[in-house]
Amino acid sequence: MGLGETIAAIEPVDREAMAAARGRQARLTKPAGSLGALEALGERLAGVARRCPPPVPQRPFVVVFAGDHGVHAQGVSPWPQEVTAQMVGNILGGGAAVNALARQVGAEVLVVDVGVATDLLPWRAAPALRSRSIRAGTRDLTVEPALTVDEASAAVEVGIDIARELADLGVDALLTGDMGIANTTPAAALVAAFTGAGASEVTGRGTGIDDTALAHKTELIARALAFHRPDPADPLGTLAAVGGLEHAALAGFILAGAALRLPVILDGVIACSAALVAAALCPDAVGAMVAGHRSVEPGATVALRHLGLEPLVDLGLRLGEGTGALLAFPILAAAARVLADMATFDSAGVSSK
Amino acid sequence: MGLGETIAAIEPVDREAMAAARGRQARLTKPAGSLGALEALGERLAGVARRCPPPVPQRPFVVVFAGDHGVHAQGVSPWPQEVTAQMVGNILGGGAAVNALARQVGAEVLVVDVGVATDLLPWRAAPALRSRSIRAGTRDLTVEPALTVDEASAAVEVGIDIARELADLGVDALLTGDMGIANTTPAAALVAAFTGAGASEVTGRGTGIDDTALAHKTELIARALAFHRPDPADPLGTLAAVGGLEHAALAGFILAGAALRLPVILDGVIACSAALVAAALCPDAVGAMVAGHRSVEPGATVALRHLGLEPLVDLGLRLGEGTGALLAFPILAAAARVLADMATFDSAGVSSK
Repeated sequence: MGLGETIAAIEPVDREAMAAARGRQARLTKPAGSLGALEALGERLAGVARRCPPPVPQRPFVVVFAGDHGVHAQGVSPWPQEVTAQMVGNILGGGAAVNALARQVGAEVLVVDVGVATDLLPWRAAPALRSRSIRAGTRDLTVEPALTVDEASAAVEVGIDIARELADLGVDALLTGDMGIANTTPAAALVAAFTGAGASEVTGRGTGIDDTALAHKTELIARALAFHRPDPADPLGTLAAVGGLEHAALAGFILAGAALRLPVILDGVIACSAALVAAALCPDAVGAMVAGHRSVEPGATVALRHLGLEPLVDLGLRLGEGTGALLAFPILAAAARVLADMATFDSAGVSSK
Repeated sequence: MGLGETIAAIEPVDREAMAAARGRQARLTKPAGSLGALEALGERLAGVARRCPPPVPQRPFVVVFAGDHGVHAQGVSPWPQEVTAQMVGNILGGGAAVNALARQVGAEVLVVDVGVATDLLPWRAAPALRSRSIRAGTRDLTVEPALTVDEASAAVEVGIDIARELADLGVDALLTGDMGIANTTPAAALVAAFTGAGASEVTGRGTGIDDTALAHKTELIARALAFHRPDPADPLGTLAAVGGLEHAALAGFILAGAALRLPVILDGVIACSAALVAAALCPDAVGAMVAGHRSVEPGATVALRHLGLEPLVDLGLRLGEGTGALLAFPILAAAARVLADMATFDSAGVSSK
């Protein structure tokens, strides 16, 4: 299924199912409103699934879209580019943070190569790796468009394909993950382009750069924005100019989740920047997005504010890979389970006030 | 085991195990510090267990200590007192919020009656109910001490007994729960007594009272504090004067957890007020305490600040029962699992920066 069909399949959240959830919350054996943000989340899950109670997700999957970035040549990261491939290997071997957290919450992990620049040959046969590379890393966005619009669209469609494939397997919650040395640079540029925020508001330290490197990175992003003048009304053009392959695939993954009526838990700034692309392509897709956590990266908060989303977890994480989305998953499942499992005052014979 | 022996068994957290955890965090395949609060939590879990990596908890148990309160007669809650017993029945039937959230995170639930005022007969045979009632509710703390010191001590020892019994069964994470209509009133009084905060700083709306009722509740708490003049240097005397039976049992439960080298996840304001009693009896017990969430009740935040604890979850909950502790459990387990499961840069062959 292509991008056009996917967008056409996205409906606004179902107001009737949300009203039913709100009514049900009021009858459950608890003081009204006492589950705080869990109640609003439960209502939205009903709206996404178009039924109340919403299904309690049983098979969450985190997909780590991996790619490299031409802008790495500008010294935006202290890590060598081959770390992207090495970390893909580490994830496939089960040793990364995303694996530890996925085991904890009962989620499965899939890695999709959409554009890793260095050799993935040693892990070619790993069952959790899907090879869907569009090109071996993007071009340097400070001197030319990172991608052609065709390349960006192809990456978006990889994300769509993966989400559909997982849904066919019975996966019922999609969690975004990413791996790509230097990928906070295109993420920050995308956030600036779609929200109108300045480079200094959206640029962060990524995996940990010092003040000098941060100033250099901010200057590069400001220069790229001035050079491309990306138009947020042209989401694919903007994505191609200053984005990345994993950002593009994530945008497709998020859109397909919305079309499939599945909740999509956003991880950090990479996912948030992809969510802005998805929302620009189809505003109703925001209904299916759940902000997993508040990343330390400033661009994540700028993006979430623009999307009108409040994160579930705020623990100072800045790791990526999908770790923040995984920490949020049990909270999302709990919100659904409250609506599915709890007794009402009538059924339990509990007096109301 | 009595209170004295329990306190004697509590050691400070093991600085060596914590240093080992800190060293290990630095070698794991992630940017240094990128897991934020999860890293500090993992170090503390190593300190509590006195080994690195700390065990990943596999068998969490939430214990709901239930009791009633003489101060209910003063109109501090809009709910009739028999709702305590009815909600105990609802929990034993699996229909309460604590049950839904426990199922989600794989925790078991035990209810301990330490002082429910009305009849629990219909549920007497329920396997998840332990009958350890000290008396049928406390006295009205606005006119006399809520408990004698002997009653308070007996309730503390119930909490100790239950924690030890669970540890013998292999339970490896203790989660605090509570049920007791009007129990935020003694909780607020305890927080004021142990922190020196004023009644208006610690009094909240509980299950949902209006401005007039809140002013009345605040005034009652201020009057009780002026009447008893509780001395925080006499923790059991303070507990007896303005506390509750479930608060006392929770204080014992927390102390025993620390003595058993198990993490204890605090739920809301009831647990936080009990934690202040435990900390006053044995400051080293704070090492084993993990703040599950930030309750809407203002006293919870005042207590956590006094204890030097930052909550893991902040979602506007004010339900009690153990719900906030349950939402935090997967985060605690994830912090341990990071140390136990993740590869190091060396073992994974990943380049460092």
